[in-house]
Amino acid sequence: MTLDLPGPKSQKILDRLNKLNIAHYDPYPLVMSQHGSGCYFQDIDGNLFLDFASQICSNPLGYNDPELKEVIKRYSYRFPIKFAGQDFSVKEHLDLLEELMKIAPKGLNMAFLVNSGAEAVENCLKLAMRKQKNSEFGVAFEHAFHGRTLGALSCTSSRLIQKQNFLQIPIKKLPYDDNALDVLQNLINTTKDTSHIGFVIIEPIQGEGGYTIASRELMKGLRKITKQNDIPFICDEVQTGMGRTGTWWASEQYGINPDLISAAKALQVGAAIANKSYRPQAGTISSTWGGGHALDMAIGLKTIEIIKKRKLLDNVRKQGIYLLKRLYEVRHISNVRGMGLMIAFDLPNKTRRNHFIIECLKNGLVLLGCGEASVRVIPPYIVTEEEIDRAVEIIQSVALKVSDPAFKHTGKICQYLTCGEVNA
Amino acid sequence: MTLDLPGPKSQKILDRLNKLNIAHYDPYPLVMSQHGSGCYFQDIDGNLFLDFASQICSNPLGYNDPELKEVIKRYSYRFPIKFAGQDFSVKEHLDLLEELMKIAPKGLNMAFLVNSGAEAVENCLKLAMRKQKNSEFGVAFEHAFHGRTLGALSCTSSRLIQKQNFLQIPIKKLPYDDNALDVLQNLINTTKDTSHIGFVIIEPIQGEGGYTIASRELMKGLRKITKQNDIPFICDEVQTGMGRTGTWWASEQYGINPDLISAAKALQVGAAIANKSYRPQAGTISSTWGGGHALDMAIGLKTIEIIKKRKLLDNVRKQGIYLLKRLYEVRHISNVRGMGLMIAFDLPNKTRRNHFIIECLKNGLVLLGCGEASVRVIPPYIVTEEEIDRAVEIIQSVALKVSDPAFKHTGKICQYLTCGEVNA
Repeated sequence: MTLDLPGPKSQKILDRLNKLNIAHYDPYPLVMSQHGSGCYFQDIDGNLFLDFASQICSNPLGYNDPELKEVIKRYSYRFPIKFAGQDFSVKEHLDLLEELMKIAPKGLNMAFLVNSGAEAVENCLKLAMRKQKNSEFGVAFEHAFHGRTLGALSCTSSRLIQKQNFLQIPIKKLPYDDNALDVLQNLINTTKDTSHIGFVIIEPIQGEGGYTIASRELMKGLRKITKQNDIPFICDEVQTGMGRTGTWWASEQYGINPDLISAAKALQVGAAIANKSYRPQAGTISSTWGGGHALDMAIGLKTIEIIKKRKLLDNVRKQGIYLLKRLYEVRHISNVRGMGLMIAFDLPNKTRRNHFIIECLKNGLVLLGCGEASVRVIPPYIVTEEEIDRAVEIIQSVALKVSDPAFKHTGKICQYLTCGEVNA
Repeated sequence: MTLDLPGPKSQKILDRLNKLNIAHYDPYPLVMSQHGSGCYFQDIDGNLFLDFASQICSNPLGYNDPELKEVIKRYSYRFPIKFAGQDFSVKEHLDLLEELMKIAPKGLNMAFLVNSGAEAVENCLKLAMRKQKNSEFGVAFEHAFHGRTLGALSCTSSRLIQKQNFLQIPIKKLPYDDNALDVLQNLINTTKDTSHIGFVIIEPIQGEGGYTIASRELMKGLRKITKQNDIPFICDEVQTGMGRTGTWWASEQYGINPDLISAAKALQVGAAIANKSYRPQAGTISSTWGGGHALDMAIGLKTIEIIKKRKLLDNVRKQGIYLLKRLYEVRHISNVRGMGLMIAFDLPNKTRRNHFIIECLKNGLVLLGCGEASVRVIPPYIVTEEEIDRAVEIIQSVALKVSDPAFKHTGKICQYLTCGEVNA
């Protein structure tokens, strides 16, 4: 029996949110409750879900971990928990930076904590341009996603709707494949002075763009060319970082050290991480709340500590291999790929993909789309073999079901998750 | 006797932060502790401060309010407290939006919750440009401060160091005085199509730029011209909004309704507030954590409720008038000005201003600089006459002391707050 979504309590809230949230369009047809455990959460109607979407990689440790609840409890007898952190320092700021520097790639030894992944990217761009001094343009990649603020968005090309009509900073785009190396070299050859090139920014695995994995040649080649020409090389690891791929940073797996890394999501705050040679003049970068959300920083710190203590990177690698292996066996899906627990596969087209995600949800499994017709499979780092078996069972049965060209959804769910659109 | 700052515990943390925070330059010479009450807080060395800086307007209700602590306590038995809020809805999102809409200016009936003031501004720009469709440039003001992400920063002109070397979106600048009306009209006359003008953005009171207050003529004139020409008019109320000036929004005091408002700081999250006619196509705007930080949104909600229940806007107006009256009596300061509890005055020059702020701090009073030689006086909304009297007493004695041209600071404090620089 499948779930009838959204439940009545959720529907009421979603309908009212739809009237007030100007960005509201296709949220999942459920409202989160405080109940959950491990990889499972309950919505406010009591429906239980196996979460293989991890709050878009923001929740690596799942639901109601006792150690993380304990952190929040420590902050329940004080106010405020959010400070103007660049002016009024809190110890949590130092604690998180010290722990973050322990796991940062070699050569990256300072960071600036901010409020989101977009802000992390913006600050990497700024640190790069301040060093270059004569930037006339930056370099990014086709199908990239770096965030929604106008600087980060200028580097983004994943979907037209995200950019249309918006003023942008000048960015040149490279193909996200090995041809990029020739294109970049040509660009350098035809640019009067390489100090006019503000930065090169890349995701080691494109997230929103479709979980496409950069080749070793591409990443090593970019590192080599940017080093030779003194162009700051930024790895955007907002989604890939903090252990999602089985190492702290995906760039490690390519054997390269970028000049700057943007991080967020699993870290609980944003961070622009850089070598200290990028430290700019006083006043260059700041943020009222940056480095000031004591509780978010404490949770970020505890997250790193737990990943270390429980050896969760080992589990990410182990379960990642198991999950890939199991998905290879599934019929009606293709192009199974991934690193660690950052895994995806494709359906034949967008409509079929959307059907697939909705049907999985009705069967209690939360997945997330990306790219044109891809599905992300990104469980928390604590996921077990049993949970993977359960998820793959649902994936298998749903893939078969939606492979029928006559398949249609019915019911209230069609107001959500572009279900109406895919049925049209 | 003055305080010897920073205390030894604070100094240790600040020194280590300085080695890791790439943005670290002149934080206050103290580290916040969890202890405080009302307008007073203690640092980790036990020094007590009267806070007339309110975490840069982010803390309107002071320290350790029991009702606000109660909110945090409610969240201490659950994890996570931070969701991917545009995809996975939480009830706190709806609750805050409903309460925010009750206090929003007439005609503004939807909002998008984000992670910071900068993101609030970025999203106002995007909503405006999506509506205009053919933007070739935006319009902002000299000395403006709208945030640090590259879109918001392009509209910012308060200090060169904040922008130098950075790629920008095209913005035309108007003077922040009544001449702006003629300049804008000329700009419109010489622009082929007004749909090429993406937006006009203004702070009703410039914050970082020096607490300069827009005239009634300027604000009303801008509203009239932008309406006549169908140009989106954005009031950036990140600092002025949420009651700081004695009404929920400073724009109310000018008798105008902007098309969009950016809010943050006292709201605890960022918000782009707009008329529903600005609702863009699905996918235009989003944010992983936007509308998803359950605890921050719950604190924002409780903040609005407390301001209403305790009639704190009345107190803001009443104590604002009292504070202005008391400051008019103070010698060696000039240009006392303000609305509600958003008050400032000037010292003769930057060096004297910095001396002044440091010396007040050593006397236990926290103030904040802005502009070239201005001092912000922005206590929490709960401030009492007695606390104002105490602050003015310190301000009076310090103003006299630093008016001596031979005045110099000594001690450890000189590593902080540009003290070394002002002594040089």
